[in-house]
Amino acid sequence: MTAPHSPLLISNVRLPDGRASAVSIADGRIAALGSDVAAPAGATVEDGGGALLLPGFVEGHTHIDKSNWGRPWYRNEVGPLLTDRINNEREWRKTSGHDAGAQSLAVSRAFIAAGTTRMRTHVDVDTDAGLRYLDGVLATRRTLADVLDMQIVAFPQSGMLIRPGTVELLSRALDAGADVLGALDPALIDGDPVASLNATFELAERHRKPIDIHLHEPGDVGAFTFRLLLDRVEALSMQGQVVVSHAFCLGALPERERDALLDRIARLDVRLLTSAPPSRPVPPLTVCRDKGITIFGGNDGIRDTWAPYGVPDMLERAMLIGMRFDLRRDDAVAIAFDCVSDAGARGCGFADYGMHVGARADLVLVDAESIAHAVVARPVRKLVVSNGRVVARNGAFIGA
Amino acid sequence: MTAPHSPLLISNVRLPDGRASAVSIADGRIAALGSDVAAPAGATVEDGGGALLLPGFVEGHTHIDKSNWGRPWYRNEVGPLLTDRINNEREWRKTSGHDAGAQSLAVSRAFIAAGTTRMRTHVDVDTDAGLRYLDGVLATRRTLADVLDMQIVAFPQSGMLIRPGTVELLSRALDAGADVLGALDPALIDGDPVASLNATFELAERHRKPIDIHLHEPGDVGAFTFRLLLDRVEALSMQGQVVVSHAFCLGALPERERDALLDRIARLDVRLLTSAPPSRPVPPLTVCRDKGITIFGGNDGIRDTWAPYGVPDMLERAMLIGMRFDLRRDDAVAIAFDCVSDAGARGCGFADYGMHVGARADLVLVDAESIAHAVVARPVRKLVVSNGRVVARNGAFIGA
Repeated sequence: MTAPHSPLLISNVRLPDGRASAVSIADGRIAALGSDVAAPAGATVEDGGGALLLPGFVEGHTHIDKSNWGRPWYRNEVGPLLTDRINNEREWRKTSGHDAGAQSLAVSRAFIAAGTTRMRTHVDVDTDAGLRYLDGVLATRRTLADVLDMQIVAFPQSGMLIRPGTVELLSRALDAGADVLGALDPALIDGDPVASLNATFELAERHRKPIDIHLHEPGDVGAFTFRLLLDRVEALSMQGQVVVSHAFCLGALPERERDALLDRIARLDVRLLTSAPPSRPVPPLTVCRDKGITIFGGNDGIRDTWAPYGVPDMLERAMLIGMRFDLRRDDAVAIAFDCVSDAGARGCGFADYGMHVGARADLVLVDAESIAHAVVARPVRKLVVSNGRVVARNGAFIGA
Repeated sequence: MTAPHSPLLISNVRLPDGRASAVSIADGRIAALGSDVAAPAGATVEDGGGALLLPGFVEGHTHIDKSNWGRPWYRNEVGPLLTDRINNEREWRKTSGHDAGAQSLAVSRAFIAAGTTRMRTHVDVDTDAGLRYLDGVLATRRTLADVLDMQIVAFPQSGMLIRPGTVELLSRALDAGADVLGALDPALIDGDPVASLNATFELAERHRKPIDIHLHEPGDVGAFTFRLLLDRVEALSMQGQVVVSHAFCLGALPERERDALLDRIARLDVRLLTSAPPSRPVPPLTVCRDKGITIFGGNDGIRDTWAPYGVPDMLERAMLIGMRFDLRRDDAVAIAFDCVSDAGARGCGFADYGMHVGARADLVLVDAESIAHAVVARPVRKLVVSNGRVVARNGAFIGA
């Protein structure tokens, strides 16, 4: 899939600290950055027009296999429970003609057009669909391999132990190309937190894969499950290998209990993902950061049967993170942006990320005066460079 | 200011219930609505192209006098307290050259371009600025009189009793053209809830004006103030004349106490306004509606020194309301839209509002399949008609 790279110079841009700069790109990497950078031999030159230069955005948690992005409107008449949403979706996907390959490609292109160059996506694996959705997303990953760095999580959306055969399917998904083992509410969905976590960690260890667990469990039961999880991270030395997504429980515990849990999370380098939902408790962002925990951001679902909200634009997600955590000062809004850039890359373990010489050349140009301005105004992306290639211009995707 | 109306026919649109329709407009009013509507004599015909027809949007609570919309980026380095924000802003407005007239005009035009045709805005009145900001907003109201139905609230942002002379200024503001008397945190800002509320109600009664009070006071102290306020609504028979904005306290009381308060709010027809902030407790939207309380939506500040967030787009505000209250089903997302349309008009008391014959012709066309789709996608406004006039096309304001 890999097309050759041609050298590129982006002139006349501003760095987030305000300095005028240019950036040269060779072999898909940032070759030089600064006010006196010259064009490499044979380089194409893009005039940045004084725009703000940002690193490519990181989507830390989404579900591109189930999005209806660009499809006819899905009329949501689903019941209020988590299990209503799970069951409705599984049935609907069987019968609606929804195509995980076509949809994941459509929404990924929209992500790239809006500046996302790295993505962790969860893909449903269940005993009705088998690996069908995974096959579709693997095809999308191959199609976009040159321009989108995609991690795939094999995710048991319908539960694991409660649907016999799911563990085996997850194992096959990891063999087939999934990078990360997913898991879901070991107590409230799977009904047996110890057995469920044991199965997850056993499978991850066997495949030598990291874990990303969706922990919606609230308050005390979530904290109970979280402690069981941390025990296993410690026993198996999986520091740095586990993400806990959502972690609503961390937003609704007495402060002393919460802080003890956060200290242990920090010590074991377990990372946290939040979509910053405004209607749920959320992990305390700045407390987590102060304790040294890597906490990063993602959309979760984008216009699917769960909810109609979400757009494939990480600047909008950064805005929602900023609003959720009441980040008002410019230096605080920059934290929201960090959640969809550096912290996201660190949390997911994306290699060679950042705006420095030697990093993969993933860059975004916007007309904005500062990072905070870009986050709240979400201006059209003038130029997106991914892996050293110009992939979008003025908000439009222009090819893999 | 009033220019003559020319008759208009908008053909080929879809109503929110899905029916194909056309709408004819004469003398600024909806003259007919339905599939068989003919063009009035001499009418201009606009082809709706099958777009969705919505009523003009209602901004129920904003601060157009203090917005930095379209200005150079304001770098926010303000401290964390409410009083930090108040004091920083008052000083900054004195010294920065910020022009309430120019800014209120700029942001109002952006509102109209995005489909807002009715607006309640709060304007700071304080002993430093006097009525200077009010004068600017009154000028904007005159400029846009034909195309924007604006209510002005004289708002003591820096406190009332704690800044002697403010009551007299508020009185002069009401004489000068403000429609509504504002008030702010009688306990936590003014320091004397009984005296502050007494002064507010006495002033409102003297001027025969309605009240809109910003009640940020949390939990128990907010509930205490709220009960004092209800006593006065009841004693002075001001049913239907009082809006309580924000009312965070209603989101953080024990359910039985909260419901008793809500029952009394319903009985006295006190209306509630929420901006649906994701970082604060909020009044329970659907519980309020089920009790018959009029609860509606607004942006609050738009890109000002308080916070960088907010855009003059009520579809985006509806989306944020939907997310805050976890409204997922299509019929639930329609409630979020109601907050920025019918409920907003009812809450503020805007006359002749709606999509029916005889109503003021305030209409918006968008390419969307349904109200829920319009709320989450926030598509460009193809056409905006206000007071029977075409005022915006494809997102661009085209004149008062």
